[in-house]
Amino acid sequence: MRAQSVGRLAVSVAGQPDIFPVNFLTFDHSILIRTDPGSKLDSIIANALVAFEVDEIRAKRAWSVVVKGSAHRLTDALELEAARQCPLWTWMPRHADVFLTVTPTTVTGRSFQRS
Amino acid sequence: MRAQSVGRLAVSVAGQPDIFPVNFLTFDHSILIRTDPGSKLDSIIANALVAFEVDEIRAKRAWSVVVKGSAHRLTDALELEAARQCPLWTWMPRHADVFLTVTPTTVTGRSFQRS
Repeated sequence: MRAQSVGRLAVSVAGQPDIFPVNFLTFDHSILIRTDPGSKLDSIIANALVAFEVDEIRAKRAWSVVVKGSAHRLTDALELEAARQCPLWTWMPRHADVFLTVTPTTVTGRSFQRS
Repeated sequence: MRAQSVGRLAVSVAGQPDIFPVNFLTFDHSILIRTDPGSKLDSIIANALVAFEVDEIRAKRAWSVVVKGSAHRLTDALELEAARQCPLWTWMPRHADVFLTVTPTTVTGRSFQRS
């Protein structure tokens, strides 16, 4: 997963799935995601069950890793300070300082030859 | 969306989101997806609410489109025959002939400058 910088976060609200491309880092056995204050993602996933997927698709080979777990918003001042040091690009052009972590419960990977 | 051939399909089972990279085509105002008989995806999404996301991330610009809707398995013989003519690569190496369509209820797109 560390080879990639963008993944897709899937959440579900009242049975309706939604999906967000996000920049991420692996961090202390969790996944660190940066999003925008007041964004849709910010409002949705407090303590929610999520799935986070990272893949790489090349001409002859493809792989995909899916992490299932729960998402939490960082609120601890020391954790936030550490998160701000991370080189996390955000999809929103303005300064963003909401950080989410996904604590994995399962991690599954698949790899394929493409013919 | 037609510029891309791979998207990510998000489903939710008992509140737990899951996400699958899939090859797709747009087809008659729906999204056509090919998957494997007996696969996890095949079993999950009969008539389910789904989110389907396609993006492109380049050095200076990124875009993402999310389609929300319901997924159905093609069962009509004529529809299946038409689907089999489509150049849909599958993630599984063996012959796959389960086709899903996603009928959109909402389509949203975002575009970003990356700095």
